[in-house]
Amino acid sequence: MDRGRTCVGGLLDDLEEVHSGRRGAGELVAAAQQRIETHDSQVRAWAQLSQNASRDAEAVDARTDSPPLRGAVVGVKDIIDVAGLPTRCGSPATTSPDPAAASATIVRRIEELGAVSLGKTETTEYAYFAPAPTINPVAPDRTPGGSSSGSAAAVAAGMVPLALGSQTAGSTTRPASYCGVVGMVLAHGSVDLAGIAGLSPSLDSLGLLTRTVSDVAHVHQLLVGSGAPADPSGRTPVHVWRGHDLAVGTSMSAAVEAAAAGLSDEGCPVTELDWDDHVFTLVRDHPIVMAHEAAASRPDLLQRSSDISLQLTQLLEQGRGIGEETYQQALVRCATSRSRLEQFLDENGGVIIGPAAQGPAPERSTGTGSPELSRPWQAMGLPVVTVPGARTAEGLPLGIQVVGIPGQESRIFAVARTLERVLAQTSTTTPSGKA
Amino acid sequence: MDRGRTCVGGLLDDLEEVHSGRRGAGELVAAAQQRIETHDSQVRAWAQLSQNASRDAEAVDARTDSPPLRGAVVGVKDIIDVAGLPTRCGSPATTSPDPAAASATIVRRIEELGAVSLGKTETTEYAYFAPAPTINPVAPDRTPGGSSSGSAAAVAAGMVPLALGSQTAGSTTRPASYCGVVGMVLAHGSVDLAGIAGLSPSLDSLGLLTRTVSDVAHVHQLLVGSGAPADPSGRTPVHVWRGHDLAVGTSMSAAVEAAAAGLSDEGCPVTELDWDDHVFTLVRDHPIVMAHEAAASRPDLLQRSSDISLQLTQLLEQGRGIGEETYQQALVRCATSRSRLEQFLDENGGVIIGPAAQGPAPERSTGTGSPELSRPWQAMGLPVVTVPGARTAEGLPLGIQVVGIPGQESRIFAVARTLERVLAQTSTTTPSGKA
Repeated sequence: MDRGRTCVGGLLDDLEEVHSGRRGAGELVAAAQQRIETHDSQVRAWAQLSQNASRDAEAVDARTDSPPLRGAVVGVKDIIDVAGLPTRCGSPATTSPDPAAASATIVRRIEELGAVSLGKTETTEYAYFAPAPTINPVAPDRTPGGSSSGSAAAVAAGMVPLALGSQTAGSTTRPASYCGVVGMVLAHGSVDLAGIAGLSPSLDSLGLLTRTVSDVAHVHQLLVGSGAPADPSGRTPVHVWRGHDLAVGTSMSAAVEAAAAGLSDEGCPVTELDWDDHVFTLVRDHPIVMAHEAAASRPDLLQRSSDISLQLTQLLEQGRGIGEETYQQALVRCATSRSRLEQFLDENGGVIIGPAAQGPAPERSTGTGSPELSRPWQAMGLPVVTVPGARTAEGLPLGIQVVGIPGQESRIFAVARTLERVLAQTSTTTPSGKA
Repeated sequence: MDRGRTCVGGLLDDLEEVHSGRRGAGELVAAAQQRIETHDSQVRAWAQLSQNASRDAEAVDARTDSPPLRGAVVGVKDIIDVAGLPTRCGSPATTSPDPAAASATIVRRIEELGAVSLGKTETTEYAYFAPAPTINPVAPDRTPGGSSSGSAAAVAAGMVPLALGSQTAGSTTRPASYCGVVGMVLAHGSVDLAGIAGLSPSLDSLGLLTRTVSDVAHVHQLLVGSGAPADPSGRTPVHVWRGHDLAVGTSMSAAVEAAAAGLSDEGCPVTELDWDDHVFTLVRDHPIVMAHEAAASRPDLLQRSSDISLQLTQLLEQGRGIGEETYQQALVRCATSRSRLEQFLDENGGVIIGPAAQGPAPERSTGTGSPELSRPWQAMGLPVVTVPGARTAEGLPLGIQVVGIPGQESRIFAVARTLERVLAQTSTTTPSGKA
């Protein structure tokens, strides 16, 4: 797919255009709608478009307070309420429910900051594994990943510069990696998730998809604040996690090595993270917490098992079979690991980098790929930014995730920005016929 | 799961017991039924059990002609007709159809040879990608692979020593690799597929799942005959294909290297197969042929799109969009590649070995894994035997596929037997807590 100059710009580009008065929010909305009209019959990133977007954009253009996200045209994952639109959660079980009476808190906040909700993006069924109809804009035979399939694809296809997603296991990191966009998982608990249909309160986190690290850092700054400053030297220590035993592919392993070498060349002290024992436990505990909480928090779904997928039914049944004690023990182990990792990063400084997925996007017919590389960090509720730029020999995107601790997101952004530049320079392979 | 001495034996062990008169077919059927009774509520390998199996076993025990498969207790993938049982194809769209009036030709043949059909094993929906309920007996959180999910799991769990499967893309090779059993894809066209609900006549092949290479070689010999003899030296040349650019994981890559080194140590001349250009084309052409033929041969399914999965609907819609010329060109390229490969193996002798899947079985919730490593060989209709024995560091099975040309299966079996022995010796890692 052509992703040339007819794209809407990156978020900061758009904001700059609007703030400088060269374009209005209405024009940006119209451009995004045009792009969707042209390409979405193929990409299928959008579940529904808002009929109010143009009117909302006019209202933003009429504002006199110059809000910081004025002109940001945003896609909203269809598990997140937008007033006036039904929240379908990618499920036939919710076909044509009533429109949401109110928007989710996060939607209200970004709209107050000047953003316009363009519509709802496709999600896997209830943000689990039954696929959405969305294709990967970079390679139509590949999955865009899930569960934030439409949000990642809409950004990758240049339809919008910002989309809201979520992550309970690997629902933002994986589609960002597969589609070649930036994905940020916000630290668990750092923003209010009211109005978002989650699966697991201890794990559900907000996701943001953008085209650049600076774009996502800007939105994070507005939503959460700046936290501790990055290392003034600009040479943040980098601890490399290679995902041993998690079925990482050879092309992804090569991308991680290239990322580590590139950061080292930029002056970052690079060391290996010896964390396999924790990862092994976290990867097993994460699904325990997720299944138990899904069964406990969504008894309504189990009663509609004829309307939901086998995968989701199995998650809920599995969750019902997990006793309270098993669940509590898993939670304690996750908290212990997090405490140890915070201690490690406090003492040694810096961030962790590693593979964002096992490899490039799998074939679309096989599902939405594996969240396994995200489970350890998600089980600890940590903020993560996935950086695009690496590619396989045939041109498929590979993401590198940068993980840190809450309140020190500035370090993550600093390393992610360097990595974004390094990977763009070293990625000399051009996409082949498949891309 | 315990897979100790309470298992039914390997196929040749069972046949030997029956031929020597130590046990009857009835006892073997009862033992298999007991094993299923005990374990299948967890494994879910079986879609239905035959009510006639004990009676059929009595009839076999009463035969005076000492048929070669006397006492072989067999699972039959539920896209293959067995007289008296409905063929459900793993789909809600076929819930409770009428029982099949006649058995598929292959079922009649193995029953004539003395086998007893124990029942129907679970399949993904119409042998495509919407998962069956089956778990991987080696690791309950993992997929057994698809589409012959139940056949592979039933053999891996020691319920039966032989199961019938099929392969259109990677439906036998992949589950064999994930479950740690032997899987053979018979050369396309080598047996009559009447009574099997296929997807793509140019690609559909019979699959056999067993516990040992000798077991599957014996069945192949009975069904297809012996063909050309293996190299009398026992030192068949081995051409190693590493699956470049097909997202092969690091653990699988290591297993392929170990397999190549082991075969070299056994005296096989080992060289690298330079076949990437063909593979690249075959991997793209295989889905074209499959989608076009699925749409052409199963118009009935598209008319029931509300009853079938999104994945299958997309296959059929994709197939309808592929023109006759595109399809014919893909067929020609596949035939050309096959001709070149036959020429290569005629001139150089030997077989090809390579990764049977990208890595170990993925998490069950994510689907049934990728068939990508099978597409090139399946597009050429070649016979393939997948050999178990390699494992990841955490004990998950990894299969190595041995590919040859029709009529020279003896070479495949010779190398597969050596590989089976070599991998059993080198696989010193014991399964960890996950397995």
